[in-house]
Amino acid sequence: MKRGASQKEIDAVVARIQEFGITPVPLPGAERMAIGTFGTTSRAAADAVESLPGVAEVVPVSRPFKLASREVIPDDTVVRVGGVPVGGGAPLAVIAGPCSVESRDQLLATARAVCAAGATILRGGAFKPRSSPYTFRGLGVDGLELLAEARAETGLAVVTEVLTPGDVDAVARSADCLQIGARNMQNYALLDAAGEQPKPVLLKRGISATVEELLLSAEYILARGNRNVILCERGIRTFERYTRNTFDVNAIPLLKRLTHLPVVGDPSHGTGKWYLVAPVALAAVAAGADALMIEVHPSPDHALSDGFESLTFENFASLMSQVGAVTRAVGRAVPEGARP
Amino acid sequence: MKRGASQKEIDAVVARIQEFGITPVPLPGAERMAIGTFGTTSRAAADAVESLPGVAEVVPVSRPFKLASREVIPDDTVVRVGGVPVGGGAPLAVIAGPCSVESRDQLLATARAVCAAGATILRGGAFKPRSSPYTFRGLGVDGLELLAEARAETGLAVVTEVLTPGDVDAVARSADCLQIGARNMQNYALLDAAGEQPKPVLLKRGISATVEELLLSAEYILARGNRNVILCERGIRTFERYTRNTFDVNAIPLLKRLTHLPVVGDPSHGTGKWYLVAPVALAAVAAGADALMIEVHPSPDHALSDGFESLTFENFASLMSQVGAVTRAVGRAVPEGARP
Amino acid sequence: MKRGASQKEIDAVVARIQEFGITPVPLPGAERMAIGTFGTTSRAAADAVESLPGVAEVVPVSRPFKLASREVIPDDTVVRVGGVPVGGGAPLAVIAGPCSVESRDQLLATARAVCAAGATILRGGAFKPRSSPYTFRGLGVDGLELLAEARAETGLAVVTEVLTPGDVDAVARSADCLQIGARNMQNYALLDAAGEQPKPVLLKRGISATVEELLLSAEYILARGNRNVILCERGIRTFERYTRNTFDVNAIPLLKRLTHLPVVGDPSHGTGKWYLVAPVALAAVAAGADALMIEVHPSPDHALSDGFESLTFENFASLMSQVGAVTRAVGRAVPEGARP
Amino acid sequence: MKRGASQKEIDAVVARIQEFGITPVPLPGAERMAIGTFGTTSRAAADAVESLPGVAEVVPVSRPFKLASREVIPDDTVVRVGGVPVGGGAPLAVIAGPCSVESRDQLLATARAVCAAGATILRGGAFKPRSSPYTFRGLGVDGLELLAEARAETGLAVVTEVLTPGDVDAVARSADCLQIGARNMQNYALLDAAGEQPKPVLLKRGISATVEELLLSAEYILARGNRNVILCERGIRTFERYTRNTFDVNAIPLLKRLTHLPVVGDPSHGTGKWYLVAPVALAAVAAGADALMIEVHPSPDHALSDGFESLTFENFASLMSQVGAVTRAVGRAVPEGARP
Repeated sequence: MKRGASQKEIDAVVARIQEFGITPVPLPGAERMAIGTFGTTSRAAADAVESLPGVAEVVPVSRPFKLASREVIPDDTVVRVGGVPVGGGAPLAVIAGPCSVESRDQLLATARAVCAAGATILRGGAFKPRSSPYTFRGLGVDGLELLAEARAETGLAVVTEVLTPGDVDAVARSADCLQIGARNMQNYALLDAAGEQPKPVLLKRGISATVEELLLSAEYILARGNRNVILCERGIRTFERYTRNTFDVNAIPLLKRLTHLPVVGDPSHGTGKWYLVAPVALAAVAAGADALMIEVHPSPDHALSDGFESLTFENFASLMSQVGAVTRAVGRAVPEGARP
Repeated sequence: MKRGASQKEIDAVVARIQEFGITPVPLPGAERMAIGTFGTTSRAAADAVESLPGVAEVVPVSRPFKLASREVIPDDTVVRVGGVPVGGGAPLAVIAGPCSVESRDQLLATARAVCAAGATILRGGAFKPRSSPYTFRGLGVDGLELLAEARAETGLAVVTEVLTPGDVDAVARSADCLQIGARNMQNYALLDAAGEQPKPVLLKRGISATVEELLLSAEYILARGNRNVILCERGIRTFERYTRNTFDVNAIPLLKRLTHLPVVGDPSHGTGKWYLVAPVALAAVAAGADALMIEVHPSPDHALSDGFESLTFENFASLMSQVGAVTRAVGRAVPEGARP
Repeated sequence: MKRGASQKEIDAVVARIQEFGITPVPLPGAERMAIGTFGTTSRAAADAVESLPGVAEVVPVSRPFKLASREVIPDDTVVRVGGVPVGGGAPLAVIAGPCSVESRDQLLATARAVCAAGATILRGGAFKPRSSPYTFRGLGVDGLELLAEARAETGLAVVTEVLTPGDVDAVARSADCLQIGARNMQNYALLDAAGEQPKPVLLKRGISATVEELLLSAEYILARGNRNVILCERGIRTFERYTRNTFDVNAIPLLKRLTHLPVVGDPSHGTGKWYLVAPVALAAVAAGADALMIEVHPSPDHALSDGFESLTFENFASLMSQVGAVTRAVGRAVPEGARP
Repeated sequence: MKRGASQKEIDAVVARIQEFGITPVPLPGAERMAIGTFGTTSRAAADAVESLPGVAEVVPVSRPFKLASREVIPDDTVVRVGGVPVGGGAPLAVIAGPCSVESRDQLLATARAVCAAGATILRGGAFKPRSSPYTFRGLGVDGLELLAEARAETGLAVVTEVLTPGDVDAVARSADCLQIGARNMQNYALLDAAGEQPKPVLLKRGISATVEELLLSAEYILARGNRNVILCERGIRTFERYTRNTFDVNAIPLLKRLTHLPVVGDPSHGTGKWYLVAPVALAAVAAGADALMIEVHPSPDHALSDGFESLTFENFASLMSQVGAVTRAVGRAVPEGARP
């Protein structure tokens, strides 16, 4: 629509599009309203709409993803997780915490340590997807309560994973942000459910998902009305055997080009080795990530999951001081806590 | 246990194992009872149990999967889909049908054609997982009813995909076998739900899942009490771009060695090109597959999904006559309908 | 050219093409002559040539490979290795022998065993490419002499690998077919050298080469004038860890469709596990391979290289009897020796 | 050996090792001499040597690579390319230039531009490996002369690729550093030849080579006596299709941990898209790379090879100013020219 198009003009365009059997989606922007459409659009429909009052132009979108595309929404989306802005011109956000919530002591000690070192969002799994049915699958609802307690004490916002549509309400009530993990990136019933509740969603790239597939999965959430999606690069599966996954650093600037959604780098899963986490975290920041997600554990050797890729409190604090320098070097604001 | 161990001896072993805080799982076999245990087992527990009456030997199982392992259950499992046996010495089973159930005409015509050509199980998606939210997602419950109608008319057993735990009951009521697709191979809530109902489950390998991960996902279903799991090789994601996926033919004899569960080859998804389906189907049979799963459509050019990899009725009938020859060449019985 | 086009007409077309600065390559076929051109061809040149006498049509070839393409040469090429025809309607050729030539006794015993079981071509490495500089790199020229001795005694044709242009003459003098291994698939100086000598070349697919890249590497040899190239699928690198490589069975019918050159399957490297060699060999035959290449060793446990994927004499003989049945099932002639 | 071990003591150890049929390799270090051995070493030999005068300890090296390993040579190797130090505490080295040397004008203009922007080493291919035989394969010896002219004018050191052992002498005479490309990483005859001449070698990781295989290929060069090897991460082949390759940023800190050799990042090949080169270059520096290798072309749209991934002069200059800031942020000295 043109700048200053009236609501009446907008309504007329929406109605006309519907006459062609196409679904219109109003997309309010900073300067003007856009109206997206989906599915195949006839030339006749485009011509009919283009001639209506208030219409600036009809733009064919070439990507299979629409609401996730910068072609449709050119300005960076800033997602607020609790009180923490992620994306756009916001300071680098640092999400840290244990892989799994294991106990009250473990979680609170970790929350205090990452908060002191400058993290602003706490991560921790209450529901854990595990390759084997015989390993620890998380504390469940008890884990959610411990996360809420840690938030109350430290002021950190909380992100935690949800595994199945039936748990979406419980997690959404408790956490500030729902995480959908790599194994569930194409669990469409879960994406639909996450799209129908209001909390932001951190969507991890599947272990061998293409960037396009990641954006199409984000599109599921966006299409249900939840526009607060954060994308997470967490390593892909390749032939390399020294590392658990290969952190696809290319994906960060590629996503920033293709989409307006914020992008997080997770070097813990992206490498699988604690001694590679710090340099790859710095690389993610240098490549333009809006946030980092780091696994931290009081005693990685005793972690019930992913101990080998978790940082100790000391190593996390040391990383945070390096992160500040690189963040500034690429012209981004530094998180409060990370300032020396 | 020794052959002929008494129920009292078995109960005593089960009780003793429980005293060590370990979960025992009785595994009745053709010749004798085995009792599996999971998680870390102490040397002390092994010694204590080995000395009980009726115990033949304590065997440490080295694989992370247990109930799926040939070390635990050496004899082939034969899974009955409706009246059709799959696995072990059963004739090659041929599962065929459209990617999606699109209409009554399309489904019934296809069911009649594949039945006439020798297929014994009908496939067809009522709930479809699609990368994009803007593409056809299946007819849902209406699709299930059409599948039931096709079964009533042709006598074919029916397998169809279930996408989320909330749909498991509806699909299990209607179909003879639940399919869990590649994207959901690590959807653990769905695996749990499939394990808690009695219909057999056809579990497809994830697009970049290792063979071990496939077996661990099968283990989720088995561990919930459903022992009727069929594994499906359907191609993995590689760098090759002429084909949609790379059919991992190695996985067929590898799975037959590692597990007692039946193995199906799906050359339609495994290649993504209709002109490669027949030779790769023959390869799967030659490599030892217990069954084939083939996409067939009355008019592949007009299919709402996966048309490019679907066979016409003529091509499917032609494939079936070749399948008979190769099946016999590797010493397996030929399905009734496939006999020339 | 039209059928029956005169030499004078052909010469005129060649000359006219040259006037446009394009290189013409006459390609004699069973029924008529084709004239290939390479590089970008102007519309003007195509029009000028199309109007010449004797020209049937000007066909733009869409593939980046030309001489390797079925679009340019539609009829199957039959390559003669020593006296053994490979490809087209020829019987399945079986190439067998040790990974490395280790000693006179080892080689002669293996040659006799594989010959007795029905192989017609002997393989054995004299020059070995090894990942580590500290492992056995082959007997070199002495190995070539032992291969010649084995040929003299058994009548088997001989194929052996050449690693560098400087060795091409020596290997070509001694062997019936030069092998270019997976690591050298894009060693263009070596491809050029192999293209400039008259012995056939068995070109193995690189460990992560696409099918198109394999055909482009074949094109290097063909473009230098050597039209006797055999392509070999030997497994590609994927994330799967139980097997050494993933045998890409799709590649066999895909290559048969794209190119007229013969295709060999190598299940020894394609799996890396001796117990998977037989089923995957049968799969390769079922999928349409023109030949098999199998590693056989008198005592795999003592092999200096690749022992874990080598068959014993007994296992090879057993495989050969199964191979006969599957070969006949797909309508191909069986090698003499393999008849029961 | 102990610090201060005499030459006589060293000689005695060398001689004693040889008596066991093992090859000793003296490895002089900053503080003391080490003596490496290769192949399987008996316990008896270790005991015999450990008791000799001047011996500090016998250390079993667990990696399959030896001379490349930090276990054997703990201190960073600094390789001098012309006058430019690469690795250890040296400033970040920036290697830049066109993919191919195409003409005198193109090369000299590029050399001047990259020199002005702060590069210290000029890259440019005279011998080009190309997937298709019908594309531009480089100017050959004429290209080498143009590179020498560019060096004479600008003072930049020169690195250029060598494709085959027969060209090693010509390239080594002309260039300051030999490049061995990804396709030739396992061309062992070429590695041997590069190991037997004195110029440093920049060894690129194969397109699907593991980090261990890269180090084993470096070992070939080191074992022939040339200790000046630079390793280059240039992207690996994955399933992702938006980018040409996936830059494996993990490999940079992993290599710095496993080996003492310098590590270069090549984001041009590592992404294949000019608009991803700058952020991924910064990521490589943040992850600890000792040098960058960047393709620059006066007019990327007209490049005869790899135009799509080449930077313009302006984009390269802009990148260099960002590189300075990130380099300083990770505590490394900045190249002279890159200082604002």
